[in-house]
Amino acid sequence: MKPVQFNNTVLRDGHQSLAATRMTTAQMLPAAAILDEMGFSGLETWGGATIDSCLRFLGENPFDRLRALKKAAPKTPQLMLLRGQNIVQYTSFPDDVVEAFVRADAAAGQDIFRIFDALNDTRNLTTAIKTVKACGKHARGEICYTTSPVHTVEAFVKMGSALRDLGCDSIGIKDMSGVIAPRIAYDMVAQLRKKVGLPITLHTHDTAGLGAAAYLAAIDAGVDIVETSIAPFANGTAQPDTLRMLALLEGHERCPKFDLKKLAELREYFTGVYKELSKFTSPDNERVDSDTLIYQVPGGMLSNFRNQLKEQNMGDKLQEVMAEIFFVREALGWIPLVTPTSQIVGTQAMLNVKFGRWKTIAPAAADIALNKYGRPPGTVDAELLKLIFERTGAKPIEGRPADALSPRMPKLREELAAKNLPTDDEACVLHAMFPQEFAKLHAPKPAAVPTPLVSVTAPAPAAPAAPSAVSTAKAIGPLHRYRLNIGGQLSEASVEEIA
Amino acid sequence: MKPVQFNNTVLRDGHQSLAATRMTTAQMLPAAAILDEMGFSGLETWGGATIDSCLRFLGENPFDRLRALKKAAPKTPQLMLLRGQNIVQYTSFPDDVVEAFVRADAAAGQDIFRIFDALNDTRNLTTAIKTVKACGKHARGEICYTTSPVHTVEAFVKMGSALRDLGCDSIGIKDMSGVIAPRIAYDMVAQLRKKVGLPITLHTHDTAGLGAAAYLAAIDAGVDIVETSIAPFANGTAQPDTLRMLALLEGHERCPKFDLKKLAELREYFTGVYKELSKFTSPDNERVDSDTLIYQVPGGMLSNFRNQLKEQNMGDKLQEVMAEIFFVREALGWIPLVTPTSQIVGTQAMLNVKFGRWKTIAPAAADIALNKYGRPPGTVDAELLKLIFERTGAKPIEGRPADALSPRMPKLREELAAKNLPTDDEACVLHAMFPQEFAKLHAPKPAAVPTPLVSVTAPAPAAPAAPSAVSTAKAIGPLHRYRLNIGGQLSEASVEEIA
Repeated sequence: MKPVQFNNTVLRDGHQSLAATRMTTAQMLPAAAILDEMGFSGLETWGGATIDSCLRFLGENPFDRLRALKKAAPKTPQLMLLRGQNIVQYTSFPDDVVEAFVRADAAAGQDIFRIFDALNDTRNLTTAIKTVKACGKHARGEICYTTSPVHTVEAFVKMGSALRDLGCDSIGIKDMSGVIAPRIAYDMVAQLRKKVGLPITLHTHDTAGLGAAAYLAAIDAGVDIVETSIAPFANGTAQPDTLRMLALLEGHERCPKFDLKKLAELREYFTGVYKELSKFTSPDNERVDSDTLIYQVPGGMLSNFRNQLKEQNMGDKLQEVMAEIFFVREALGWIPLVTPTSQIVGTQAMLNVKFGRWKTIAPAAADIALNKYGRPPGTVDAELLKLIFERTGAKPIEGRPADALSPRMPKLREELAAKNLPTDDEACVLHAMFPQEFAKLHAPKPAAVPTPLVSVTAPAPAAPAAPSAVSTAKAIGPLHRYRLNIGGQLSEASVEEIA
Repeated sequence: MKPVQFNNTVLRDGHQSLAATRMTTAQMLPAAAILDEMGFSGLETWGGATIDSCLRFLGENPFDRLRALKKAAPKTPQLMLLRGQNIVQYTSFPDDVVEAFVRADAAAGQDIFRIFDALNDTRNLTTAIKTVKACGKHARGEICYTTSPVHTVEAFVKMGSALRDLGCDSIGIKDMSGVIAPRIAYDMVAQLRKKVGLPITLHTHDTAGLGAAAYLAAIDAGVDIVETSIAPFANGTAQPDTLRMLALLEGHERCPKFDLKKLAELREYFTGVYKELSKFTSPDNERVDSDTLIYQVPGGMLSNFRNQLKEQNMGDKLQEVMAEIFFVREALGWIPLVTPTSQIVGTQAMLNVKFGRWKTIAPAAADIALNKYGRPPGTVDAELLKLIFERTGAKPIEGRPADALSPRMPKLREELAAKNLPTDDEACVLHAMFPQEFAKLHAPKPAAVPTPLVSVTAPAPAAPAAPSAVSTAKAIGPLHRYRLNIGGQLSEASVEEIA
């Protein structure tokens, strides 16, 4: 068997999982050329939460980031993570927006598209796969791994065959919660190789301390690629460190060759970046924690969730809410937990604990029950469907969710023109997903806007929001954070516009 | 093959590796009965640094701890870690003291003795093994695992045969630095099974993130027992968590059965203890760090070392000193790094970096070169031996180090009698290793000593120590800690008598 190959995730999932997606393009560029020389089979640099973060927190145009990284690292294929019909947002978009996004991304230099659907409903992947292939790019169809009574190796392998038949170039096993046991990883890779016949990549997280061992088992079974990162943006809730994987493969016939001195250089460089981002990192995400094995919560979700519960004064309810997640998941047909379902299930579990089960049903949770995100893998709880019908009169839909959506591109272009903003495809798709943030990117900059992480001496006083009851309301504006220094006393404040 | 068995280390190596050995007997006892019911094949509760810590920091009689734990957990065999002729100290003791120690320990209830020598010189293990067998107890001969040009699987297996011929009941592979690669673990277990024929235990640390995968490989190869701990005293520089190992073994034909609810209870209990010991824990030890792969430094040493370098104002020299450790190790004949050689090599590396190579040779480093700790596995650097001879006139010794030591037990008894202290074997062996600390244990207690971790409203004012320069002085008394509440303002203070 050939040496296993490594894709490197430090520029996307590494910092998304361990530093709230806050690495800037400026922090990436000095490492890009070195990464390009290492012999990685791919660099994951884009997609997932990075588009949102570029616009919302970093004031960057995400397409400019991609072009800059392609220029700095032209040799190694670059990967993005695409949420199927949700693109990089939390709800379905019409086909013409998905197509425009993929075309714009391909034109900006994207090589490999990792395409997944949170419910593993392949109908939500067809448009993206078709467009990627039409652009002459590599479509990697992702199988979201999770455990439940309906998620068997056989079912996953069947999905692999469906992805092949849709035209995918390769198959990815996406273990976003880091819960795949080594024996299962072995079986799944072996079965997929035998029955699907496409190259296979395993992507996992070391959240529960299973990731590296799962990679080893997959390598034994013949996986083509595993995805690693660079410490300190590695291990814990992120991917296993590259140096660590090499050590684990010592004496293995499939151990690849890497320049250890260059790896040490990269590690040293990223240690500096990690320190710069210390406001967004936490030891809670660095250590392995097998609690995730019980609740099947993805690493990234776990870290955000701890903060959300604190904001809701529910910091002491973590265990209870985590247990409720299990219940909500079953009621919603055993959906995998991955963006956006992880957020939706998490919010509903929080509401159930706070107000009583199903006393308040979040609209997005109802939408899942009503098949508006696609077909759940299992059966939605009949009692829940009854409650939703009693309260809203809505019944489950049958067709593909996006079939109900009209084309939006012409309208998006009109809206942008009316605002005197660019109207090309890049602009349209960003405007479709992040209207305020995109407008903000093009707004004339006030002279003295403080850059993030620089302390301000006189923050603008924010009007106090209405107390309580607003805490679960949907944010409709960007979050502004201030570091206050009043007479030498430091404190922090945040202001966010809500619906 | 039978299910693999787990020894649990939370009461010894778990807190030694992650909380500076500071867990008190009072903190252990509430968990002991639950641990006893779980079906662990053994509980490691004693030895290593725990004796030192009991006397120096916790004001406890270590034999009383053992008796209390035996009473609370009578069913599961209890293990101790014994440093061969060094007992639980850093230098050789005469045979009669080693014999008295083992007899006293066996009488107090010890079941299994893990016996190792830092240099893997089996001549340093004979007295301990013989005495353990004479007491009718289980002798587990340990092979200290390390990597170097002279440490081959064949050499380790040869040592395994030697341990069997010395009368050991089982063989332990002691990977104190957590550097054993899964393939090597597999080969070593397979070879030891074939050529030695005794039950085998693998003990490792997850410091570099290899531990759990090494256990899996060893289990595939037929290892009888692996050693796990309970989170949060698990993973990182300690042993892999029990729940995590069970998850890794999902679907494996050798997966053992454990009560997951009871495991969750234990985890919850130890989470409270971990918080109580927060002064001694550090995120640096909780995350996996593959740096250790380059320098082969045991987890426990790495954490102590960071503090020592800071105290020496050499906090910025960590990388340089770690690289020098490699050089010193080669010069001293590729000795494994484990207590006490890890401390000795570490100190010498620090001296080399501070003053230049071999400008100052620590007496203990010279003793290693002169075979006073036993035979190093490789060849000692001839230039170094020449330097030592020029400065001290000393040449390497040939025989077993302890052969040069006269019996000490009668003298120890006299010394204790003269001080009006107990003169039984327990007293003699503790006095032999920790004279000041043992005397302190029996000193009349001042009336108003506050108990540790209990808040006091009016702490006794402590005379301020001389500023600076005292930081590296040896502590000769127990550490007293105070929580101060001054006008509602909480703070902490500690007082420790130093030499």
